[in-house]
Amino acid sequence: MQLADLYTAQAREALPPLWGPSLETDGEPPLSLAYGLADPALFPQEELVDTTARILASHLNDALNYAPVAPALTTLIAERLHREGVQSHEDEILVAYGSSQILGLLPRVLIEPGDTVLVEAPTFMGAVRQFKRAGAQMIGLPVDAHGLDVEALATTLEALKRKNLRPKFLYTIPTFQNPAGVTLSLERRQRIVELAAAYGVLVVEDDAYVDLRFRGEPLPPMAALDQEGWVLRVGTFSKILAPGLRVGWAHGPRELIARLQMFKLEGASSPFVTHLVARFSANGRLEQHITDLCAHYAIKCATMSQALRHQLPEATFIEPDGGFFIWLQLPQGVQASELAPVALKHGVEILPGTRCYTDGSGEAYIRLAFSELPGNQIETAIRRLSTAIKVVQRPTEGG
Amino acid sequence: MQLADLYTAQAREALPPLWGPSLETDGEPPLSLAYGLADPALFPQEELVDTTARILASHLNDALNYAPVAPALTTLIAERLHREGVQSHEDEILVAYGSSQILGLLPRVLIEPGDTVLVEAPTFMGAVRQFKRAGAQMIGLPVDAHGLDVEALATTLEALKRKNLRPKFLYTIPTFQNPAGVTLSLERRQRIVELAAAYGVLVVEDDAYVDLRFRGEPLPPMAALDQEGWVLRVGTFSKILAPGLRVGWAHGPRELIARLQMFKLEGASSPFVTHLVARFSANGRLEQHITDLCAHYAIKCATMSQALRHQLPEATFIEPDGGFFIWLQLPQGVQASELAPVALKHGVEILPGTRCYTDGSGEAYIRLAFSELPGNQIETAIRRLSTAIKVVQRPTEGG
Repeated sequence: MQLADLYTAQAREALPPLWGPSLETDGEPPLSLAYGLADPALFPQEELVDTTARILASHLNDALNYAPVAPALTTLIAERLHREGVQSHEDEILVAYGSSQILGLLPRVLIEPGDTVLVEAPTFMGAVRQFKRAGAQMIGLPVDAHGLDVEALATTLEALKRKNLRPKFLYTIPTFQNPAGVTLSLERRQRIVELAAAYGVLVVEDDAYVDLRFRGEPLPPMAALDQEGWVLRVGTFSKILAPGLRVGWAHGPRELIARLQMFKLEGASSPFVTHLVARFSANGRLEQHITDLCAHYAIKCATMSQALRHQLPEATFIEPDGGFFIWLQLPQGVQASELAPVALKHGVEILPGTRCYTDGSGEAYIRLAFSELPGNQIETAIRRLSTAIKVVQRPTEGG
Repeated sequence: MQLADLYTAQAREALPPLWGPSLETDGEPPLSLAYGLADPALFPQEELVDTTARILASHLNDALNYAPVAPALTTLIAERLHREGVQSHEDEILVAYGSSQILGLLPRVLIEPGDTVLVEAPTFMGAVRQFKRAGAQMIGLPVDAHGLDVEALATTLEALKRKNLRPKFLYTIPTFQNPAGVTLSLERRQRIVELAAAYGVLVVEDDAYVDLRFRGEPLPPMAALDQEGWVLRVGTFSKILAPGLRVGWAHGPRELIARLQMFKLEGASSPFVTHLVARFSANGRLEQHITDLCAHYAIKCATMSQALRHQLPEATFIEPDGGFFIWLQLPQGVQASELAPVALKHGVEILPGTRCYTDGSGEAYIRLAFSELPGNQIETAIRRLSTAIKVVQRPTEGG
């Protein structure tokens, strides 16, 4: 008798890990531009210690015993939504262990095997992976300089309707998109909200990067434009405070929030951490911190952009107005999956564009995160990348 | 078109909340003996602040960026398992958001609708609820002064086998059982491990209270007795440090741990909190803290026991050797569900025994937590309970 006989059907089919093992390198570790990590220099180290002292002095039992999420955190999220033009009630907000938990809960409420889900192409594969695991059929919609191509969305919705198919949701990252760095225009936001209502499709608006705007005016989220309850807005404190705290949230129709909560089987998210985040953020401190982050990340983005223009003039990109990433179109003929191991040998890790598509396309692109490394290391990393690209471009001996 | 049309079948059937809304009371809030909360006087407040300062000084990026669970926490859990006689490897341990998350993940790996799960009667309904939601058929096995009745287990396994039914797992709380307070004897532990191997049934050994032993020698966990990989051991830092940190763990066969991990969709548990727990616990500090907790909770248990003997001599109970709970058999004729609202009116909240059975039995019992309240309030609460019982016992006027 085997233990394995006891597994559910779902547990038998294991998905491979999202990221394979890192390739081996000799000597010093590579400079990594592959992942959207925060810059540790920007973590408010001493303030978090002070904040811990203050919450344990004033809310010892609420923070350390069995307790609900800090009410002040829900209030903070509601206030921030209000400033974005979104009116909310307490029971329309779910606090979770990072927005990744929201994305993990979503399929339980919405996806039966075979259901259709619309995503951007390219997109954040950490999300797609959750939808695929639940058995969703993914349809990728193109993205251009102004974000998701809404006419492609309209055409796809109509074509699906003719086949009597109603997609469960559209997953979109409207602001400083991961990986493309582009922002969905206001007109397109309005059009998406109209299409969602017309076709009865939920819009999952993952706005993880929205607060990290370096220039230009903020745009209203689709949750603010929507009048009929077809938008689930997903946010996180990972990019604006610290990923390691694991605090994200969703705002949406009460009934949907209640159902997401129902599948959050371990109960309310950490009382301790939610009190910590709420107290740190109080009295405008979070907004001031975000201002500092934006100034700092804007410089790093400019550093990377300049280095790319200088070192890699044949590669092209749209310089983003915020966020963590530059989406680089490689010089003609350079394949991302061929480049990645060569780059690693030259001491720089990059994310091949193929990791951002559901269908294996993306060979012409790589994603570069400017968020983590200090400016001088970004410059070194881009020099190394440039060398690696030249190596890949060089015709094979005797070829 | 309705949003609700998009829900999965599972999301349509909402379970009612585990605990209904608290009954309204006038004036001051009742003294509650209903829930297994920690005593906030025992939270190491200042040390947790110091520990936060130390981890952010030495492990800023590991604790606050995207990162795995603190390796030191996995090592700590492995060392504690080793002292219990359980040898473990890193990939046999899963750290989660409380043991409740482990109990929530379990059904995804093991339960298909209609599967059989064996539980103790009475048991912890927070766990049962997770199994039921996944569609498990629950079979309750009796508990006596020495824990789960293993002959009832053997008979049940044999009867199921004759019907060609193989239960997915046995869920048991072997030490200072919730709610009965009793501890499974060594002989019975050995017998359960033998039966598990003979019938191919996983034993889920939820030992949340094991470290809170007031007297007597520790018994080996079933995970230490098991030679064939049929035990999943589940533990938590909630009772020995602070529930609000949300840190629990499971140890078991590598393949099973990998599958539980696969369904932990939000990824690794909080880097920040896992570093905090590991650093606090270092250099024997956790074990010293546990010694302090045991001394303190032992006094509260004795206080409640004495008060019960004095105030309610017609009620009977087995004084536990550890844990959080006394399981009180009510005087003849007193029904727990009738008593609960009367007790609340008299300013004491208790958990009716019916909340600890899957089949509505348990009217003869109530669960009393001595863990949370200070000693003098425990005495007041038991006096109030005694009054409430007398009111329920009093023949109705004209009856």
